Amino acid sequence: MALIVQKYGGTSVGSIERIHRVADRVEQAVKEGNKVIVVLSAMSGETDRLMKLAHDVAALPDERELDMLLSTGERVTIALLAMVLRGRGLDARSFTGRQVGIMTDSAHTRARITRVAAERIREALTRGVIPVVAGFQGINEHSDVTTLGRGGSDLTAVALAGALKADRCVIFTDVDGVYTADPNIVPSARRINRIAYEEMLEMASLGAKVLQSRSVEFAAKYNVPLEVNSSFKEGKGTLVKREDADMEAVAVSGITGDRNQAKITLVGVPDRPGIAARLLGPIAKANILVDMIIQNVSHESLTDFSFTIPRVDVKKAMPIIEETAKDIGAKSVSVTEAIAKVSLVGVGMRSHSGVAAKMFDVLSHEGVNIMMISTSEIKISCVIDEKYMELAMRALHAAFGLDQTPVGK
Amino acid sequence: MALIVQKYGGTSVGSIERIHRVADRVEQAVKEGNKVIVVLSAMSGETDRLMKLAHDVAALPDERELDMLLSTGERVTIALLAMVLRGRGLDARSFTGRQVGIMTDSAHTRARITRVAAERIREALTRGVIPVVAGFQGINEHSDVTTLGRGGSDLTAVALAGALKADRCVIFTDVDGVYTADPNIVPSARRINRIAYEEMLEMASLGAKVLQSRSVEFAAKYNVPLEVNSSFKEGKGTLVKREDADMEAVAVSGITGDRNQAKITLVGVPDRPGIAARLLGPIAKANILVDMIIQNVSHESLTDFSFTIPRVDVKKAMPIIEETAKDIGAKSVSVTEAIAKVSLVGVGMRSHSGVAAKMFDVLSHEGVNIMMISTSEIKISCVIDEKYMELAMRALHAAFGLDQTPVGK
Repeated sequence: MALIVQKYGGTSVGSIERIHRVADRVEQAVKEGNKVIVVLSAMSGETDRLMKLAHDVAALPDERELDMLLSTGERVTIALLAMVLRGRGLDARSFTGRQVGIMTDSAHTRARITRVAAERIREALTRGVIPVVAGFQGINEHSDVTTLGRGGSDLTAVALAGALKADRCVIFTDVDGVYTADPNIVPSARRINRIAYEEMLEMASLGAKVLQSRSVEFAAKYNVPLEVNSSFKEGKGTLVKREDADMEAVAVSGITGDRNQAKITLVGVPDRPGIAARLLGPIAKANILVDMIIQNVSHESLTDFSFTIPRVDVKKAMPIIEETAKDIGAKSVSVTEAIAKVSLVGVGMRSHSGVAAKMFDVLSHEGVNIMMISTSEIKISCVIDEKYMELAMRALHAAFGLDQTPVGK
Repeated sequence: MALIVQKYGGTSVGSIERIHRVADRVEQAVKEGNKVIVVLSAMSGETDRLMKLAHDVAALPDERELDMLLSTGERVTIALLAMVLRGRGLDARSFTGRQVGIMTDSAHTRARITRVAAERIREALTRGVIPVVAGFQGINEHSDVTTLGRGGSDLTAVALAGALKADRCVIFTDVDGVYTADPNIVPSARRINRIAYEEMLEMASLGAKVLQSRSVEFAAKYNVPLEVNSSFKEGKGTLVKREDADMEAVAVSGITGDRNQAKITLVGVPDRPGIAARLLGPIAKANILVDMIIQNVSHESLTDFSFTIPRVDVKKAMPIIEETAKDIGAKSVSVTEAIAKVSLVGVGMRSHSGVAAKMFDVLSHEGVNIMMISTSEIKISCVIDEKYMELAMRALHAAFGLDQTPVGK
């Protein structure tokens, strides 16, 4: 008998009919002899409806009050699913974030989990009760309701799975797994059967939307096997787990493309120690995340300094950058918004040499110019002209053999 | 500086625009130097919407889960009002029933308040915070959400006013007070300025819908002055308070009409001791409330036995009654659904004699036959043919001088 946490997202509980389908899956898992804990999101559209109400009454709604408001959505779905399951003769019980002891800090609307008590769930499980838990929410030390921000319900599921040492945490969503690349861009992309936490983390932070980095980090930390599966069709999904020997058989597991970055270049910067810190300090202070940074070799004591920031932050960043550029005596500042970051991810890179060389070769062969490069142990990213992103991804996908079933996956 | 509890019903918070109007009233009371605690219902229609969801998923929704579901409605309105007030620079904070310590028993969907801690409200008030509290809900000893049933938000308001020894509890609703009679039936009905708890209790239990008996009982027990006022127009409402000398100046304060009863008569019952108990016992066991009971003097050891029960319970009651009637040897059973109970209420009756005689006289003068009579210290009720109810109420309203402003009110 396995202990399984099943998490269903907003579209999976988006209607009465779909809630019945969730009940089917829960019932099936129970009948197969498993102990099941269900974590639910709000019905799709509900959070938007509540958000609209909030913005109708206040230009800048108070965040504590926003949490009080938004946390109602999951309470509706857990009560409804518990009713359906009980109607089928299963002893299900709904529990709020507070009732299962999801303790958080006080950063309303984006709270971090500090502790998971899970006492009532443990007690419910011993009595054979199926706990149906409200995702996305917890309480702080004052017993005020908090919410966990984007991907919060996944986080609730993973945190409960970790605290209860569950055998598996299944994230049911509207896609049937993690793909080698976004199928909307690369039609030959295939579902990955198994992927290592680290790979998934890189892919999540590089723009794969199916899982949030926070949930993957949590799963990795507590070694919770995480499965991404479709609520709407039967079949296998993607299992995210600790790296094993098999996984290294292929060099590249997935390819991501990210067009949310912009490139800033300071031309003709006097090459003195401390210039980078002086430039990037004020940007960090403004809470703008700098992603890639390159500094060219200097000519006649002058260098060019480039970095990328989120495209949405360009407006906010420019006055700060212009100011610092003047201070440090840069000749000019240029902004390129139409860039894309294409990345290869794979734990196999550690043992396969030549991945970077092959990537550059493929891009060059397609006539794609590389503006910036950054690498980590299991990732290579290239910044290119945005208009070549799809072309680059498709070419790399084919060149690294991702169009075929990878060995050992 | 007074401490005032203001309670707003569903129609008063039924839209964004109306929530702004509630904020106007709260702001005004605060500017006048009062400490204000606000208690809110769910937006009108919201409870119905949630109920519909519940009945869509389950034929007989589990009551604990129903409470989890229904309790979300007030959380939405308290969050929204707190946002509006904070947007105006007032330090308002929303609190759930749990957060203000409304402790109840475990009778889900109709829980009774067992204790009111109100710690967080006390603490909030000392810091100058305006507490905005979710009505209708509490938690039981297991920390499960419970709801208080019909009129539950009024009860929350009165209970908080009692626990905090508030100077006044104002129930803002869609009518501007308690009337001498239902204005839809008696067009000359007038608003009562002041009324004693006992009178209000009688009127509530006799069908005046503006306040529920439970709230009035609670207010009387803790001597909380209760004001019923309109959310939609300015002006005085009705103050429900402890009886004072003035109130006795008039014999009759109000007239009610109730057409929700049905009359059952057992004809030709052998007049033996214990017959009433044998007959009414099984009905009480079936949770059917018997209101009025009369037994005629016997002729040749046979008597007629009549009583009234709620009209909605007739179907459920009849098999039980037929069964017992056979057992005790009654000749026949008759049911009259088309009856109405018309009542006069007034603490003045204690000191004014002849109220009953005058009532019978007025009804007789209008040609209305009286089927049953029951009296208490401050009430006289007559059961009559339903078709005369309006006529009887109007005639009595005029005869007892309620068309004019009562003295001392």
